[in-house]
Amino acid sequence: MAIRIGILGYGNLGKGIEAGIRQNPDMELAAVFTRRSPESLKLQTEGVPVYSADSAKDHADEIDVLMICGGSATDLPKQTPEFAKYFNVIDSFDTHAKIPEHFANVDQAAKENGHVAMISVGWDPGLFSLNRMMAGAILPDGKDYTFWGKGVSQGHSDAIRRIEGVADAKQYTIPVDEALDAVRSGKNPELTTRQKHTRECFVVAKEGADKAKIEEEIKTMPNYFSDYDTTVHFISQEELSRDHSGIPHGGFVIRCGKTGFNGENQHIIEYSLKLDSNPEFTSSVLLAYARATVRMCKEGMKGCKTIFDVPPAYLSPLDGETLRKQLL
Amino acid sequence: MAIRIGILGYGNLGKGIEAGIRQNPDMELAAVFTRRSPESLKLQTEGVPVYSADSAKDHADEIDVLMICGGSATDLPKQTPEFAKYFNVIDSFDTHAKIPEHFANVDQAAKENGHVAMISVGWDPGLFSLNRMMAGAILPDGKDYTFWGKGVSQGHSDAIRRIEGVADAKQYTIPVDEALDAVRSGKNPELTTRQKHTRECFVVAKEGADKAKIEEEIKTMPNYFSDYDTTVHFISQEELSRDHSGIPHGGFVIRCGKTGFNGENQHIIEYSLKLDSNPEFTSSVLLAYARATVRMCKEGMKGCKTIFDVPPAYLSPLDGETLRKQLL
Repeated sequence: MAIRIGILGYGNLGKGIEAGIRQNPDMELAAVFTRRSPESLKLQTEGVPVYSADSAKDHADEIDVLMICGGSATDLPKQTPEFAKYFNVIDSFDTHAKIPEHFANVDQAAKENGHVAMISVGWDPGLFSLNRMMAGAILPDGKDYTFWGKGVSQGHSDAIRRIEGVADAKQYTIPVDEALDAVRSGKNPELTTRQKHTRECFVVAKEGADKAKIEEEIKTMPNYFSDYDTTVHFISQEELSRDHSGIPHGGFVIRCGKTGFNGENQHIIEYSLKLDSNPEFTSSVLLAYARATVRMCKEGMKGCKTIFDVPPAYLSPLDGETLRKQLL
Repeated sequence: MAIRIGILGYGNLGKGIEAGIRQNPDMELAAVFTRRSPESLKLQTEGVPVYSADSAKDHADEIDVLMICGGSATDLPKQTPEFAKYFNVIDSFDTHAKIPEHFANVDQAAKENGHVAMISVGWDPGLFSLNRMMAGAILPDGKDYTFWGKGVSQGHSDAIRRIEGVADAKQYTIPVDEALDAVRSGKNPELTTRQKHTRECFVVAKEGADKAKIEEEIKTMPNYFSDYDTTVHFISQEELSRDHSGIPHGGFVIRCGKTGFNGENQHIIEYSLKLDSNPEFTSSVLLAYARATVRMCKEGMKGCKTIFDVPPAYLSPLDGETLRKQLL
């Protein structure tokens, strides 16, 4: 029987999951839950019911795992512990500093109700975390670096849009090639924030706005831009829509470490992603871990889990024998 | 209490493990077992006993996990099932086609005696297998490629040394840049053996040997060289010793896949290794999985396991709370 997937929240991530399910013959979309009016949603998949998020628990029997597609700032801290009472759940909570707190809340709800709840699944946190951790365990005498981009930062784009006189904006985070090269060469450089990434902004100014002032406000914005070399381009709304409507992202996790009785040999482990669509790739990671979540629940596990806890074989629809024969 | 590591076989891999233990404060080298005369071995670590391999089972109580450092052709198929009767064991069995048979033999011995036995740990099979498997589970609509090198192939170097008139030789496997670029560009190319890798040979000819004949024999050798563009350089023994004494290796696992309702978005997952010393890096991977082996045994698991079965957190000396706080 196919794994019955529920989606809570039909935004970019929810739509990515809907599309991703079609690539996984062992899964089916069982229902979508929304805080909007259910009638207002038009799914791409025929015959799938849309329910109000408030009524989700009435449909617990129809769902093997619920994908919680809310935002990390305010949605997930409430939603994931709440829905872990009724479902196996999985989220992509990405506020790194608040993960321990989120874990504790979700763990309690999931354990009390016999569910498995996976949090912080995606690529960072997620696959990048996994690679940082594994590379560190394998090469203890070393140093790791994470670079992000080239890709769109939603948070930085939003910050620009809040500036007076700005109609619309898109911000790209770009890793600095020289820094990447220095890391890959095994020099274990100490890199400042400025040396690792640059920021490139495409801004649509409102009619009559003071562009020089906008540029100055962007470049000096604390936390977001002041520690970076930032470039600002003013373009038209047409250009922004035509050339910058995608949501690409990606990055690099690189660990350089030494081995040998005298540290005489050096090794570089590098993991990189180049993604046309950040939300669709994140959705694909979530679906593989949804498969694992259901399997862990069937094996009697319960409580909150992260990407560190999942035996990799559980991500695959293939059985152990086939995996060993074809992929080991 | 530290994890007590035993090493069976004191060659390049065994020495790499001895060196690696020094980088892991939660491990100690408890004993080395050898088929040679124990007195003939000179360890780099003081106070560690060397025992005859034949007496290994008498020391089962002194060892938490035994690292079996034999060759895949004839040693490991016998040693791993045999020693899994008395110890938790781990090997780097790398004959891909025979993994299912090896798994079955080891699984029986380990299960009957309540041990955990990890096989085929290293980077290929090993980390590369893990990345092929995970990338395939995440991007089901895609294609993966593995490239090896630049690095020394022991098997190919040996094959050259068996040619009449050859005193010594070293062979490098080199991935073709154009093929790597085509894969990374997302073109999903169909690549022949010849298009993926070239082979470069450094050969020391014996006095008076027919170099043209040696070169011809290398380039036309079936399986090893005839399907590749092969370059042969004749050099002196001094040059070989000076410039080609290392055992570097590495490679790339790249998966390109599509997502979206119409496959409109493309994603590249790339994992790469650049290793100064193939055996020392393999040793480092083995040690991280040795930690996991002991933990799995403590949790009551038994039987044969592979890299697909291990929850990543088990590789780390850090506990779950610390991992989530620092690395997720």
